[in-house]
Amino acid sequence: MTGPVTLGIDVGGTKILGLAVDGAGVVLAEEKAPTPRVLAPEGSGDSGGDAVIETIVDVAERLLDALAADGDTRGRSERVSAVGVGVPGLVDDDGWLRFAPNLPGGEGLDVKGRLSELLAPVKVVVDNDATCAVMGEWIYGAAAGATDAVVVTLGTGIGGGLIVNNAVARGALGFAGEIGHMVVDPAGPACPCGKRGCWERFASGSGLGRLAREAAHAGRLDEVLRAAGGDPEAVRAEDVTAAAAAGDEGAQAVLGELGWWLALGLANLANILDPSVFVLGGGLVDALNLVIEPVRTAFDNLVEGRLGRPEVMISLAMLGERSGAVGAAVLARRDHRALARRPD
Amino acid sequence: MTGPVTLGIDVGGTKILGLAVDGAGVVLAEEKAPTPRVLAPEGSGDSGGDAVIETIVDVAERLLDALAADGDTRGRSERVSAVGVGVPGLVDDDGWLRFAPNLPGGEGLDVKGRLSELLAPVKVVVDNDATCAVMGEWIYGAAAGATDAVVVTLGTGIGGGLIVNNAVARGALGFAGEIGHMVVDPAGPACPCGKRGCWERFASGSGLGRLAREAAHAGRLDEVLRAAGGDPEAVRAEDVTAAAAAGDEGAQAVLGELGWWLALGLANLANILDPSVFVLGGGLVDALNLVIEPVRTAFDNLVEGRLGRPEVMISLAMLGERSGAVGAAVLARRDHRALARRPD
Repeated sequence: MTGPVTLGIDVGGTKILGLAVDGAGVVLAEEKAPTPRVLAPEGSGDSGGDAVIETIVDVAERLLDALAADGDTRGRSERVSAVGVGVPGLVDDDGWLRFAPNLPGGEGLDVKGRLSELLAPVKVVVDNDATCAVMGEWIYGAAAGATDAVVVTLGTGIGGGLIVNNAVARGALGFAGEIGHMVVDPAGPACPCGKRGCWERFASGSGLGRLAREAAHAGRLDEVLRAAGGDPEAVRAEDVTAAAAAGDEGAQAVLGELGWWLALGLANLANILDPSVFVLGGGLVDALNLVIEPVRTAFDNLVEGRLGRPEVMISLAMLGERSGAVGAAVLARRDHRALARRPD
Repeated sequence: MTGPVTLGIDVGGTKILGLAVDGAGVVLAEEKAPTPRVLAPEGSGDSGGDAVIETIVDVAERLLDALAADGDTRGRSERVSAVGVGVPGLVDDDGWLRFAPNLPGGEGLDVKGRLSELLAPVKVVVDNDATCAVMGEWIYGAAAGATDAVVVTLGTGIGGGLIVNNAVARGALGFAGEIGHMVVDPAGPACPCGKRGCWERFASGSGLGRLAREAAHAGRLDEVLRAAGGDPEAVRAEDVTAAAAAGDEGAQAVLGELGWWLALGLANLANILDPSVFVLGGGLVDALNLVIEPVRTAFDNLVEGRLGRPEVMISLAMLGERSGAVGAAVLARRDHRALARRPD
């Protein structure tokens, strides 16, 4: 075990993943729990986030227990130097969750305050989940060594984490990286955020489901439709990725459509930020393996001045589904907001 | 006169503007020339950029002469410490222009090498014109004091300059800030860059001309159409801005359309970068004065989580058409690429 141990907890749309990580990035313990989807009853005066907070605390306590079982006989709070938590949505400098379209009940939650109280005296830091993922991939993964990189987390929605000028870019208010809500088609489908045609309506897991249902309605996904019981509205993203992996051409075409929209958004980001590498992570990554070459080709056709610029790398996340939790642990062991600058 | 004098030369789509600027940002001399539009004859082996280089040198020499006339009796090359040049397109670390859709004949031009030879022994630095504009507005203009800002130059196309984490963001290759080629409608009009529906097809001077011709064809711009001789294809952006300023409702509606597309792109950039301020510059700015309030309203409706975040400022460039030339002069007096970090 090298250096101080920290906990990193990644709150996803469907599950909460917690890791205990040592100072060299080695994972010492792992615990999971499903993300509670229960909303508070109307008029209860509760933000609805209690269940989320309780589950995070539960995961943290199971990690502390696991460290004890592993022979660390110090008091609970001495086993770790800090806890980092990544949450989906806009997190302000005080650790409040300000906007959380993909975490029902999370909006307006004082994540840092509540957790600091329940986990005292252990220090708690809270940040956007994609910012955590970029930190994990930048320090220990596919973006290591890059001065400019973008980590794209493809799950229910699309999150982003930015490395600019050799540092994590948070923006003026800590809200940078909300790349999934870049509008790429103002006449496109409605988004829970209130706009139309956000990138994540096309290139995320929920986007894949939508593209698949459109294809099913249009008769371009007959095998998958039959397996789903014949109702186009019952077709899910998972059905398409499974069928594509099994060689179904209709399903592969739908994945190709997703890949084209993915490439379009990446090209937009390349034009704006000029990263040397894109790192693709999140739950959709396994499916992307099937279309990564078409994505690269489409990207080359869409990025400005392709012939005059060296190739931009498009890599899959090396830490897999652990990027966010590892990054949250890295953030926890540093001076958090002040920091985020890679050691030279 | 304070500190070292540098020259800043901004190469625009229609004119080349040169300034001699002292160390406090005071403009000591100004010279202009039209941007040459002559292309080299095919097969001449010439990139076509000779005329551009010659005009830049001419503007620089007239500035040096003006400084002499102003009483600076030193040798020509001692009158200034360096020359900064901003050019429209992708500029690499060696000062070559790699991609220049808005400067015919400029592509593949060794701007820095050619100018260094002709202006020796004065040091020459070359950068993207919008990067120069952001530097001017950040050091002496509307973005002063911001840690995160975006300067949007609205001319023939749309250029961008980014301040991220209190420094100019250039990207991995120096190509960052090509925000005009963010695709906002993949089914939209073709762009000279080879794609469809780039932001600058809607929200630039050429975008305004296109929106106006569409409106004229659709019978929504009758007054302007009559003034233009009755041919919808003869309607120009300037006709619309003039008519809008004079109170023509059809023209104001077209400007409003431009404003909506402008707001859409700004909201995308806010979601990605979270700047505290947008600075709008370039030739279209006077026209924007007429629609700046609708732009702000549309932006508020389009940016993610508006209710949870403080207002993002949308300001007009303080240095007006001089932002780029002043910024080029600032870049010239600093250690250029290494630098670009605001003094604390």
